[in-house]
Amino acid sequence: MSNNYNDMWRSLGVNLEAHDQLLQALPPTYHDVYLTQTNRPKSMEYFDFVVNEIHGLRIQELQEHKKNGGKVIGAFCVFVPEEIVRAAGGICIGLCSGIDIGAAEAEQVLPRSICPLIKSFMGFKLAKVCPYFESCDMVVGETTCDGKKKAFEILNDYVPVHVMETPQMKKSRDKQLWLEEVQDFAELAQKTTGTEITDVSLAQAIQEVNGKRQALRRLSNLRKNNPVPISGKDSLLIEQIAMYDDVARFTAKVNELCDELEQKISTGAGVFPGRTPRVIVTGTPMAIPNWKVPHIIETSGAVIVAEEMCTGLRYFENEVAEADGLDSMLENIAARYLGINCAVFTPNTGRLEQLENLVRDYHADGVIHCTLSFCDPYAVEANRVEKMMKQKEIPFLKIETGYDQEDAGQLKTRVEAFIEMLR
Amino acid sequence: MSNNYNDMWRSLGVNLEAHDQLLQALPPTYHDVYLTQTNRPKSMEYFDFVVNEIHGLRIQELQEHKKNGGKVIGAFCVFVPEEIVRAAGGICIGLCSGIDIGAAEAEQVLPRSICPLIKSFMGFKLAKVCPYFESCDMVVGETTCDGKKKAFEILNDYVPVHVMETPQMKKSRDKQLWLEEVQDFAELAQKTTGTEITDVSLAQAIQEVNGKRQALRRLSNLRKNNPVPISGKDSLLIEQIAMYDDVARFTAKVNELCDELEQKISTGAGVFPGRTPRVIVTGTPMAIPNWKVPHIIETSGAVIVAEEMCTGLRYFENEVAEADGLDSMLENIAARYLGINCAVFTPNTGRLEQLENLVRDYHADGVIHCTLSFCDPYAVEANRVEKMMKQKEIPFLKIETGYDQEDAGQLKTRVEAFIEMLR
Ligand code: SF4
Ligand code: SF4
Ligand code: SF4
Ligand code: SF4
Repeated sequence: MSNNYNDMWRSLGVNLEAHDQLLQALPPTYHDVYLTQTNRPKSMEYFDFVVNEIHGLRIQELQEHKKNGGKVIGAFCVFVPEEIVRAAGGICIGLCSGIDIGAAEAEQVLPRSICPLIKSFMGFKLAKVCPYFESCDMVVGETTCDGKKKAFEILNDYVPVHVMETPQMKKSRDKQLWLEEVQDFAELAQKTTGTEITDVSLAQAIQEVNGKRQALRRLSNLRKNNPVPISGKDSLLIEQIAMYDDVARFTAKVNELCDELEQKISTGAGVFPGRTPRVIVTGTPMAIPNWKVPHIIETSGAVIVAEEMCTGLRYFENEVAEADGLDSMLENIAARYLGINCAVFTPNTGRLEQLENLVRDYHADGVIHCTLSFCDPYAVEANRVEKMMKQKEIPFLKIETGYDQEDAGQLKTRVEAFIEMLR
Repeated sequence: MSNNYNDMWRSLGVNLEAHDQLLQALPPTYHDVYLTQTNRPKSMEYFDFVVNEIHGLRIQELQEHKKNGGKVIGAFCVFVPEEIVRAAGGICIGLCSGIDIGAAEAEQVLPRSICPLIKSFMGFKLAKVCPYFESCDMVVGETTCDGKKKAFEILNDYVPVHVMETPQMKKSRDKQLWLEEVQDFAELAQKTTGTEITDVSLAQAIQEVNGKRQALRRLSNLRKNNPVPISGKDSLLIEQIAMYDDVARFTAKVNELCDELEQKISTGAGVFPGRTPRVIVTGTPMAIPNWKVPHIIETSGAVIVAEEMCTGLRYFENEVAEADGLDSMLENIAARYLGINCAVFTPNTGRLEQLENLVRDYHADGVIHCTLSFCDPYAVEANRVEKMMKQKEIPFLKIETGYDQEDAGQLKTRVEAFIEMLR
């Protein structure tokens, strides 16, 4: 990325020295993980461009939006309803937190043994390395997991944080509580942006975000083909970019890519040979630029055909039903989001059912469960997934890892042995 | 403890070999930690006796209760309303989980890096070492922290578990949700015991449990004196025993002890010299027989004057307001329990205010924050406590530790240095 953006970053209060480190780390990693792939779809060019401009063009767009009086709202979880932010004229940005920069700063306020995603977002803020974070007028947290829930109290010392209470079960009283939280959030979004949410604006936002989900689902469905027309790494990248790119442009580009892939499929072409073992990954989100485990898997002889995670299917698998009238729309929004099968719910049997269906629909040969270190919800729920996989006789591998590369060799050995078993 | 109970334990399905290990570990530890103390109140005899008979007499009482058709209900958290269990004719037992026995078994179903309390209760169940656990007809869990919430799904494979949904905030919608959970629990308790809860039985249960709380508060208040009439270790033991002893007998014994202590105070006598630095411990519960940190503190020249923890003040600081009619009583029960300042709530400012008051009321010279390893709610909230302590210029030490003794030497060095500072 050119350094023409230095002035912009400086004006955002970004720590340029630390930020340079980040920018220098990204291109070589990206080259090794992404640009060495063969048979890549031509339409990946756009997404390569987005990564190349990761802190440039899109940040410039956010700044223009803000210059025109617009607000930027950051989120850390797919439970925060993007539709509401958009209907109130705001832009909703997923704050990714997929790299361990600022860990030293984070450890001044957080315990050392905490999930790397949490340590990362705190580090980003304290070290001021992320221009997305620094562009946010407000950050929306949620009470999903203990670590995030409590870390938001600290984060609130540095940026205004609103916490939505996500319930822990899915009984009717939880649905009621969550609906009220969504209604409150709509109030707050209007207050924050100064723009009223209307029937028209909310209906449009629902359609736009549904459009994004439809494009991603279209892409996902194409991966059911054999040979698979796109790598898991490229798919993951697109799902990561979905969290912060311009919605309309992103949707169009994903659809363009799908057009190309359909062409490819019709000629029987794919990115991996037809007999490559097919794997589903499931677990905690893989925030950009965390490509560690997918890279290991796809350089060990397998291809990833689906991600049962929040950077993946959980983000786009359900749509908000369209409706007339604000109240009904908010109800549908609340219902759609409470359909997310996150491990913070007890029980979370929907995830098990979904996984079983995915294995069948995506013709998967095995499942790899990836948990970020110290993530209790997923690390404990892994036992439930493992139990079900055994019952269904689906090959299963469980991985727990952080953002550092120390265990990469050891992980590769385990993954290779697992894939060998799938042949 | 005599082995005359072998038949009883066998009939409960206890693994006698593993249980023997547990029973052999306890007396020497108890001797070193408790019986070496000087100036102990004579009335501690009863509590020594209870520990000596820990898996004997009380288990026998539970078995007799069960023979007469009574039910035993286990709990892991002070959020489970004992009043309701009692009103339905049941006995409520706090399942302690303060020792790392059965860890190997627990790690077959749980991640290795999880809070030792959770690992302990899972290990107790899988290794069948705890006759209290084996006496339970049902176990009541809660959705407090991620680790417990998710571990209950696994525990339910081995013993029937009912999970109460504790909310994560204290807004009015949370109060409503929690009230409904309490009402549901009253239904379930009646179904489980086959005994109807009546106005009379619930009123009586409220009075009895309030009586226990009053006795513990009376004891706690006596510790405000200088010199302090009872050690922190002895006080903790009593608070631990409160969770499973017979309510009426326990209450009477604590009041007897208080009578003795009042005598002592009137003569100016105490267990430590009057100029001993006074410390408040705060943090995660210390389940029996976890006496590790208090032992270090009180053998390093300080005395503990209060425990701001669930094995401590949080257990007895608030009473259930008496009322007429079942509905009002259940409302008061729900309200009382939601007053508990657990770190799983966000925010949990009540704990900070309470701590500040305690430092003043108990004439404390410093505060030691103790977190069990991998406990995100308390480890992260420690930052809030630390911030407040700095503002109020109260000396503060933060400890994170598990059930093993490996770090005992290092902890002692840190605690000694802290206490030196308080002189
Ligand atoms: S895994 Fe759960 S907490 Fe994390 S982003 Fe997904 S829904 Fe949110
Ligand atoms: S990976 Fe787990 S611990 Fe980390 S933020 Fe997500 S749910 Fe929380
Ligand atoms: S610390 Fe919280 S979760 Fe633990 S026993 Fe106390 S109230 Fe329950
Ligand atoms: S100590 Fe912390 S992690 Fe352990 S059971 Fe209690 S709240 Fe949960």
